[in-house]
Amino acid sequence: MRRPVSLAHASRLVNHGPTVLVSSAHGERRNVMAAAWSMPVEFTPPRIAVVLDKSTFTRELVLASGGFALNLPCRALADLCFTVGSVSGTEADKFTRYGIERFEGSTGLPLVEGCVAWLECRLISEPHAQEAYDTFFGEVVAAQADDRVFANGRWSFRDDNAELHTLHHLGAGVFAVPSQTVQGRVIAPLPDPA
Amino acid sequence: MRRPVSLAHASRLVNHGPTVLVSSAHGERRNVMAAAWSMPVEFTPPRIAVVLDKSTFTRELVLASGGFALNLPCRALADLCFTVGSVSGTEADKFTRYGIERFEGSTGLPLVEGCVAWLECRLISEPHAQEAYDTFFGEVVAAQADDRVFANGRWSFRDDNAELHTLHHLGAGVFAVPSQTVQGRVIAPLPDPA
Repeated sequence: MRRPVSLAHASRLVNHGPTVLVSSAHGERRNVMAAAWSMPVEFTPPRIAVVLDKSTFTRELVLASGGFALNLPCRALADLCFTVGSVSGTEADKFTRYGIERFEGSTGLPLVEGCVAWLECRLISEPHAQEAYDTFFGEVVAAQADDRVFANGRWSFRDDNAELHTLHHLGAGVFAVPSQTVQGRVIAPLPDPA
Repeated sequence: MRRPVSLAHASRLVNHGPTVLVSSAHGERRNVMAAAWSMPVEFTPPRIAVVLDKSTFTRELVLASGGFALNLPCRALADLCFTVGSVSGTEADKFTRYGIERFEGSTGLPLVEGCVAWLECRLISEPHAQEAYDTFFGEVVAAQADDRVFANGRWSFRDDNAELHTLHHLGAGVFAVPSQTVQGRVIAPLPDPA
């Protein structure tokens, strides 16, 4: 079930480097594309960066509307993720073309059903970073997650929710899935040689 | 075994969002810290972005030297990764304190033994992005990877190299490990309603 995520925990949704679907809309036009290149840049206020190539229709909609959403697809959506990353939205409305179910976020953005987390962002205008590095900064203004896999501010990847694990694009449609976790321990320093 | 990676393939090393160790040096001073927040921004020339907080010793060394390296730790290094992300290098040399084995990269940077990939970067000075978003852009000038897990420009995460899988920090020392992969397929569009 979808639950709101505290903005203080928003960065944790993307801390582990998942591939995302970027959704956007302006007037009657809308789009969704896959993006492997995004990261948090600040905890408070929660801010993220995402790379939007100059060739993308998404970039045009984001610049026109001043907002975008990151939707986190899961294993069950691997085909959809690869597909919307392989075709351009300038040709046809991908939501209609592929029968992608959506719901409206609190900012009015179209969000993708079946994803496991959603971050709605206000674009922070940085023309130089956009032009030189295709890097778009945004402030997260609303976040949600599927509580079967993200609850109490933490991801929980388990065997019984394997279809809800996030996707991490390796290339050519092959996605790594974080199906195991490991707990790191703090190592004791070596004895001081002095 | 360590093998050079073509610069054309450098972005593939970090495309799936691994947590990295950032190593740096200036004069006699050196450091290594963990960073979950990095991403590629350009294929050619290969460029990446990484977030270096204002409180870090690494930031000081990177600004002074104009370079840094991203080392990709693997499952076998989960404790080391969590440890160097939990203590500051201003207190003591972490390489010495934790007995971290290193080798010298082609740019002279200290690289961490036991990691599975290494990207040596030249800092691209962007004072505004550095100040406003702690975001440092770099151009990859040399890359290497362990050919047991990355070969022919592709990661290969298998059961028989599980200890070499990359780490993806979820928080509090818990790392997701991309121990499975899934192949996405392109979906056929719905029939045109017209």
